[in-house]
Amino acid sequence: MSVTMHPEEFKRAGHEVVDWIAHYLEHIREYPVLPAVAPGNLAAKLPAAAPDAGEPMDAILEDFRRLIVPALTHWNHPRFHAYFSVSASPPGILGEMLAAALNVNHMVWKSCPAATELEQVVLGWLREWLGMPAEYFGVIHDTASVNTMHAIAAAREAAAPQFRTEGASPGLTLYTSEQAHSSVEKGAIALGIGQNHVRKVPVDGAFRMRPQALAEMAAADVSQGKRPFCVVATTGTTSTTSIDPVAEILPVARQFGMWVHVDAAYGGPAAILPEKRHLFAGIEEADSLVINPHKWLFTPMDLSVLYTRRPDILRRAFSLVPEYLKTAEDGRAVNFMDYGVPLGRRFRSLKLWFILRYYGREGVSRILRRHLEWAQEFARCVESDPAFELCAPVPLSTICFRLKAGDDPSRTLLDRVNATGKVFLSHTVLDGRFVLRFAIGNIATTREDVLGAWDLIRETARQPPPTPCIPAARRDEEA
Amino acid sequence: MSVTMHPEEFKRAGHEVVDWIAHYLEHIREYPVLPAVAPGNLAAKLPAAAPDAGEPMDAILEDFRRLIVPALTHWNHPRFHAYFSVSASPPGILGEMLAAALNVNHMVWKSCPAATELEQVVLGWLREWLGMPAEYFGVIHDTASVNTMHAIAAAREAAAPQFRTEGASPGLTLYTSEQAHSSVEKGAIALGIGQNHVRKVPVDGAFRMRPQALAEMAAADVSQGKRPFCVVATTGTTSTTSIDPVAEILPVARQFGMWVHVDAAYGGPAAILPEKRHLFAGIEEADSLVINPHKWLFTPMDLSVLYTRRPDILRRAFSLVPEYLKTAEDGRAVNFMDYGVPLGRRFRSLKLWFILRYYGREGVSRILRRHLEWAQEFARCVESDPAFELCAPVPLSTICFRLKAGDDPSRTLLDRVNATGKVFLSHTVLDGRFVLRFAIGNIATTREDVLGAWDLIRETARQPPPTPCIPAARRDEEA
Repeated sequence: MSVTMHPEEFKRAGHEVVDWIAHYLEHIREYPVLPAVAPGNLAAKLPAAAPDAGEPMDAILEDFRRLIVPALTHWNHPRFHAYFSVSASPPGILGEMLAAALNVNHMVWKSCPAATELEQVVLGWLREWLGMPAEYFGVIHDTASVNTMHAIAAAREAAAPQFRTEGASPGLTLYTSEQAHSSVEKGAIALGIGQNHVRKVPVDGAFRMRPQALAEMAAADVSQGKRPFCVVATTGTTSTTSIDPVAEILPVARQFGMWVHVDAAYGGPAAILPEKRHLFAGIEEADSLVINPHKWLFTPMDLSVLYTRRPDILRRAFSLVPEYLKTAEDGRAVNFMDYGVPLGRRFRSLKLWFILRYYGREGVSRILRRHLEWAQEFARCVESDPAFELCAPVPLSTICFRLKAGDDPSRTLLDRVNATGKVFLSHTVLDGRFVLRFAIGNIATTREDVLGAWDLIRETARQPPPTPCIPAARRDEEA
Repeated sequence: MSVTMHPEEFKRAGHEVVDWIAHYLEHIREYPVLPAVAPGNLAAKLPAAAPDAGEPMDAILEDFRRLIVPALTHWNHPRFHAYFSVSASPPGILGEMLAAALNVNHMVWKSCPAATELEQVVLGWLREWLGMPAEYFGVIHDTASVNTMHAIAAAREAAAPQFRTEGASPGLTLYTSEQAHSSVEKGAIALGIGQNHVRKVPVDGAFRMRPQALAEMAAADVSQGKRPFCVVATTGTTSTTSIDPVAEILPVARQFGMWVHVDAAYGGPAAILPEKRHLFAGIEEADSLVINPHKWLFTPMDLSVLYTRRPDILRRAFSLVPEYLKTAEDGRAVNFMDYGVPLGRRFRSLKLWFILRYYGREGVSRILRRHLEWAQEFARCVESDPAFELCAPVPLSTICFRLKAGDDPSRTLLDRVNATGKVFLSHTVLDGRFVLRFAIGNIATTREDVLGAWDLIRETARQPPPTPCIPAARRDEEA
């Protein structure tokens, strides 16, 4: 191993890194969630070229701490409440350490039996927690965007098998709500369905897809000679976590022969809780479903799961076996490469195995319930303050709210709160209005974090800006 | 952090994992490269459901060692010579440990400035090592398959911008060699180009694409009303590492207005060596190029780089910015989400930064040169043994060879050699004949490993099988 790194040197550096991580996680609240940097600040501090001679690990780790850390947005921070709040939990980090060292690639069973079978077993465990039937087959890809693209490709294969060989199959139309994630449209663009054939179904007052509107749009398309082939419902939309009524969407989809894909990337884990299961009624009959353990299941990026009850169709859409990847076990074992675009596959299931075992169903449920409770508590704080208003129901752990005073004061409030470095919130636009989003989901977040964030937001809103407000963009340039 | 894991518990488990990795890497030759398991063996040893109550980390790590390790194919083993030989080098492992703990997601600059800018800087470093012009823009995705799909999508956007909105644009035809990786065809299938519109260009005696044949096929397609839009050349094909003559393909492509994508996933790092640069003549004029540091650049899975001199086209193919991802820095900073399907992005550049700095250009070059030399040495061994024959030139570090006695003896030899657990080779088929592949690329491989593997192969070929040969598939079932 001497050409690579002496074992003792690796151990010393490895222990140093572990200690740094332990200290980081314990003292993470001392870091500003958002860094005070402007575009180009870090790049300007790094050499224009890589070194000719190798450098000692100590120097590299020192630069990591000195240059990289101050330019990080701390996603693993318990007061990161932007986008969706995620976590790299300690058992997940340990799993990633081992996966990195093993460096296996289970494109086919033979190329790594352990990774192939553990992926199947662990996805079976998660499927059972979610209350989905045993016939669902799971496969891991990096992100929900990629998995959604695969689901739409399976739907395309089911509706128009000639698409695989001939390409172009005019008239296929896809349906998703106005509140769906941009990855649905992006997937349709990538797959050659075409952005103009993505229909945005209107939502109700709670931002949920209206099944009646879906039926009307599909019928109108059919009368125009189009072929409705896929509907993507979302159980936990990105802006408001609204939950489309899958059970009511299913019969409409069946009537038109459409594949039903459910985007449960963020919201899915709530289905583990019996008291929340009703929100997900119908998912057990969907053709496919995506859930991201790297969102609300304490798993380090990246690990997104695609489940489908029709793995034969998914396989038909993607299987292509060159001679050099044929094995004696073909037909007797799952070769995950058959189910998608990526050939190389990291050993992602290892970290999820560690996490599901370390916390158990009880531990996971306890953490999810706390997040759900605190979200209700935060929502009550918003409602009880006359300066603020809630902008959407709170079925899960994300709250949409704003200042009644309007868009500009709300935007200014967001900028000022984020500039403190104490929390990081993001925004969206609902019914044309600027709205703040507060997402709860990090495993280390406490009730004090959540209530403290509310105090900070409320106090900031009460205090006028000290000087005439300089737009955020200007501030960045001057930083 | 108590709800997640006590810091002292994390430190203890983390140190244990680091020590295990150090011991694993030092004693890795004691593990069989291929495990002696049959499909289902591991799954049968794991519980059907996840635990309700959490379990201690010690028990989980014990099960990792007891159940997972014996079912691993050891890709990080210096005698893993199958497919392409890869490495998770120690500095790369340290980088992954930190990336897992930080758990950032740089979909937009603001969501992690450090990861956004380090990706640009490190890809600039690698680009300079490869001798490519500064205008090339780089972006990291998980695998070459995914990056190749993105390159073809950019080519599609350049040729037929209406594909994005309308889908279906009949007649687009893509060209790649008979020896190209299956991901080219799979990408064309995914994107709606259609498998029937992928032309396999014949190769010469050294398995390189014939530019004249490309010109003739494209002209024939044009005369049939088709639209040649993309050619994918490979510098280091999967079966033989043959290198398509990019400089001769370019003028043909330009004549027909085709986008030129170069698949240098495996072979690319050899371009770092001045004495090998001539093999890659022309890549600096390609429209796009993919290279996988997780193949022959000692980087843990996964890290594949897509370079393009036309990032505006790639961006036009994929950009789609929902309200909740708009930031004040849009237009002033790179938002990597604009360049592809995946939205979530791991901090993959961190490990590559560690590796390029720890080894430097000199260290990387020294290791690559050793691999290239040993491949020549292995090839000379094959040529000097009258029972064997070389089946392809050896421009890089992979050798294709077989027993002159034919397919069945060659197949049996492969099975018997792999069954020893001492090495792992894979196979391919060339001109209809079964061929063994011996790939060199692991950072810890030594000359003794390579020559010892040859001795094992030669000795195994000389000794008749002890009993009437039982097919490999049967042996697995009995295991």
